[in-house]
Amino acid sequence: MALDDTWFTETNADNGAAFSLKLSKKLHEEQTTYQRITIYETEHFGTLMTIDDLYMVSDRDNFLYHEMMSHPALFTHDAPKDVLIIGGGDCGTLREVLRHPSVTCAQQVEIDERVTRLSEKYFPELCASNNDPRAELHFVDGIKWIKDSKPDRYDLIIVDSTDPVGPAEGLFTEAFHRDCLRVLRPGGIFIQQSESPLYHMELIASLHGALRRAGFSDVKTMPFPQPVYPSGWWSATMAGKGRDLAKFRDADARAKPFDTTYYNADVHRAALALPEFMRKRLA
Amino acid sequence: MALDDTWFTETNADNGAAFSLKLSKKLHEEQTTYQRITIYETEHFGTLMTIDDLYMVSDRDNFLYHEMMSHPALFTHDAPKDVLIIGGGDCGTLREVLRHPSVTCAQQVEIDERVTRLSEKYFPELCASNNDPRAELHFVDGIKWIKDSKPDRYDLIIVDSTDPVGPAEGLFTEAFHRDCLRVLRPGGIFIQQSESPLYHMELIASLHGALRRAGFSDVKTMPFPQPVYPSGWWSATMAGKGRDLAKFRDADARAKPFDTTYYNADVHRAALALPEFMRKRLA
Repeated sequence: MALDDTWFTETNADNGAAFSLKLSKKLHEEQTTYQRITIYETEHFGTLMTIDDLYMVSDRDNFLYHEMMSHPALFTHDAPKDVLIIGGGDCGTLREVLRHPSVTCAQQVEIDERVTRLSEKYFPELCASNNDPRAELHFVDGIKWIKDSKPDRYDLIIVDSTDPVGPAEGLFTEAFHRDCLRVLRPGGIFIQQSESPLYHMELIASLHGALRRAGFSDVKTMPFPQPVYPSGWWSATMAGKGRDLAKFRDADARAKPFDTTYYNADVHRAALALPEFMRKRLA
Repeated sequence: MALDDTWFTETNADNGAAFSLKLSKKLHEEQTTYQRITIYETEHFGTLMTIDDLYMVSDRDNFLYHEMMSHPALFTHDAPKDVLIIGGGDCGTLREVLRHPSVTCAQQVEIDERVTRLSEKYFPELCASNNDPRAELHFVDGIKWIKDSKPDRYDLIIVDSTDPVGPAEGLFTEAFHRDCLRVLRPGGIFIQQSESPLYHMELIASLHGALRRAGFSDVKTMPFPQPVYPSGWWSATMAGKGRDLAKFRDADARAKPFDTTYYNADVHRAALALPEFMRKRLA
């Protein structure tokens, strides 16, 4: 059947695939300096934000992405205090980061302030911690922010970006990763959203190469489900500065003082298991 | 954007979501006694079979489903000899089952012979083991087959069916599960495709209840990615006849004498980790 324009459809031309959500109405649309942001009310996925007609975040399934971009890295670090989020304008990752009592400062550096302002209005739950005294919101270029940062400044860097085209392209380069390594403290952890295991295996392999050449000592990709993103299967790639990523604070994860919907200690360990085709490609 | 009729779209009305694949051409279509089977050539997912306009199997991503419907259960059993597959007409599960040297007989009981005949023609790789001397293809009603089977007949029963509507409806009932328990040997394992963790959590919970009431001693659901199925996230539910399902033949899985694309011993263990919302609902 053909879908009419009561559906929002993201088409992935390289893979001849498309995912659609039935809309109730368009709530907002604007062209910012960087991109076109649209907010819809969907019939069954709650509120939806798209950027340049690509899925960004929906009420219904964002828990998968936000929990996997934050808790595995935070529970791998021994005592994360200073956290930097590059991108992450919807503030969902920031909220998850601030659930960790050890965190004393979480800076979110998003290039497009409008993403955050619209998220405050349309995704208030994701922005619930924006006024936490430990939170800092900066609206500047993340690549420049990293370049200007002092060495040994952060325990954790989370790159919560759009796809590696347009504004986010520079976030998938060895030069950027080298800068991240420099501003991480010894034992620090870098984590970056790394696209679909099914559609983007070569990008993931290339990211591993870039992170290792940049000087990270261990690199691990964690696949997880994400219905609104291409193929419904997504991944985050962690890299350690002089640290192994296989071990994490299992007891703390089991006794975590906050609720999650997807993440738990077992899911954390499970996410480190690579499907056979990924294991072979990354060997 | 609207998708035109060069795409095949499966719409999931209950969840206001749809997944589409770009087609090159329609290869075949027929109405059988039971359902309408259509075969397409897609641009990027290889050959695709749909039944009543629902995704059944594509060249590109069927490895996920077929490997997860077979290897975890087979490597959990100590020495599976007699295997029964209910449904499974595309023969992909049969092929995976027959990779296990301990298996001496694998019966596939598919109600609609046309699914298998079309699969032989359009999915020859999935049917590569149909002529294995250990394989038996029967085209009759699986529910009746189980009713007519002698007690203690099988080590493993795999229910590889369509959704729980139409011909497959009776496969999701306690009465059917009780019959399955009867024909399984002590220590035997039952496994059934159990829909999407995101969309069908209540069906999964109800399946757990039915299996436990039927007398199975342990029940475990394993989520896995499946791009062409609703939400891109699917599951299989295992049940043991007087056996715990947490342990499996890890060393054998590590030394498996055949290649896989998704499954390996680490993925097996990982699949047993339940996301937090599932753990809570099934507790």
